[in-house]
Amino acid sequence: MILVNGEAAQAISALDRGLAYGDGVFRTLRTRDGQPLWWADQAAKLAADCAALQLACPDADLLRAEVARVAEAGEGMVKLIVTRGVGARGYAPPAGQATTRIVLAAPLPAHARADAGDAIVVRWCSLRLARQPRLAGIKHLNRLENVLARAEWDDPAIFEGLLCDEGGAVIGGTMSNVAWIKDGALFTPELDACGVAGVARARLLRAAARHGIPARIGRWHPDAILAADEVMVCNSLIGVRRVARLGDATWAAAGWTTLLNEALHEDQD
Amino acid sequence: MILVNGEAAQAISALDRGLAYGDGVFRTLRTRDGQPLWWADQAAKLAADCAALQLACPDADLLRAEVARVAEAGEGMVKLIVTRGVGARGYAPPAGQATTRIVLAAPLPAHARADAGDAIVVRWCSLRLARQPRLAGIKHLNRLENVLARAEWDDPAIFEGLLCDEGGAVIGGTMSNVAWIKDGALFTPELDACGVAGVARARLLRAAARHGIPARIGRWHPDAILAADEVMVCNSLIGVRRVARLGDATWAAAGWTTLLNEALHEDQD
Repeated sequence: MILVNGEAAQAISALDRGLAYGDGVFRTLRTRDGQPLWWADQAAKLAADCAALQLACPDADLLRAEVARVAEAGEGMVKLIVTRGVGARGYAPPAGQATTRIVLAAPLPAHARADAGDAIVVRWCSLRLARQPRLAGIKHLNRLENVLARAEWDDPAIFEGLLCDEGGAVIGGTMSNVAWIKDGALFTPELDACGVAGVARARLLRAAARHGIPARIGRWHPDAILAADEVMVCNSLIGVRRVARLGDATWAAAGWTTLLNEALHEDQD
Repeated sequence: MILVNGEAAQAISALDRGLAYGDGVFRTLRTRDGQPLWWADQAAKLAADCAALQLACPDADLLRAEVARVAEAGEGMVKLIVTRGVGARGYAPPAGQATTRIVLAAPLPAHARADAGDAIVVRWCSLRLARQPRLAGIKHLNRLENVLARAEWDDPAIFEGLLCDEGGAVIGGTMSNVAWIKDGALFTPELDACGVAGVARARLLRAAARHGIPARIGRWHPDAILAADEVMVCNSLIGVRRVARLGDATWAAAGWTTLLNEALHEDQD
């Protein structure tokens, strides 16, 4: 089921700025029995991303009610899209605060189900992410880099591809954030020039803090990951998932991902 | 009037990848009495941009017929959008070659009409364009940088804003390419890392060659423009337009823009 501005619909205007320019933001979240997981974080991130693009963010309670209307029974996923709506032709954002909000449900992907298993295989992508501080961290609708990176492989055994920026620093996966443990500390890339700062990443950092695991956010090259004790990727659908293989490198489980994946859900809302 | 895959429609699927990821390309072109101007160039550029994203490009004759169906009488404009269509969720491009093509007409903007006058006022934008060689030159649907740059001013007297990349090299305008004359040569930025390589720019370079004006394509900082004898911006709606003022700098007409704007139309098709 799809709601467009609260009405059941299958389509949006062909003049919407979300299509014309990718002028909007989105969220992908898990639902259980009609309720969104991690809703406070999801709503706060949506509001922050809208603010970064000077979009009017729809009311969080309204959105939550619409998520409940569309969500499938049991485990599911919902995508929220907020665009700058239909406007006059041209790049200039129209005056006023009209937006289009789209709330759509889909079955939970197989790779996100509880029985999907723990450890995954990951590869390096050759595409380098462009550095754009004005858009960094935002989950906006300009995602051609992700599309091009994801097109680099079609082996279904490979779960995710990791990307570096043009300077060679690791940024994250096409659909996930990356983190790793080394000598008892949690490392994850700084996302001030590219990448998406996901809700799962924020929760992972909070979980680490609660468990006394020091966190380091910075710029690291692939060598730092290869020297890690355990490597993981995370997003709102899969939680934290351990990387068993990355290119030629392999890791055995050291327990960190299991601990952190459980900790991710401690401050459930 | 709007055609979606050849059928009169106002809307596209809310699941289209053009909306979800900006996964597509577009063209904006002038029409006269239902016929697209510079069609051979427009069709060739659309095909090249589709190829760069591994999109199946719709047949040029089909598109031309659809342009004629939607175009307004007299002078008008038409926008063509080609997206990767409705696909499975996730960034991976779906197998097969389904695309969505959207052909929509609009009145010619006032600033593009013949009586709009010659010289324009331009400003510098503070946003720096990200360098992404994989997307450079392509008129794709990921245009948030253009939206953010265009949002930097709302003075209707300012026609266009010029942008530099993060290294400080001039790239072009939010909706146009920039060029300038210095000592009898035509200069325009290299677009191998960012910017859109428009059809009008390509025609400008061909026109210069026909008229024995040497062209130089490279990387220049704003100082080079400020030292120019004449500065111009171009796109498929406005042709070539002379810049009378850029920030604090002003230029009197030296005749180059008039010559080149006429020359732009010599190989009419």
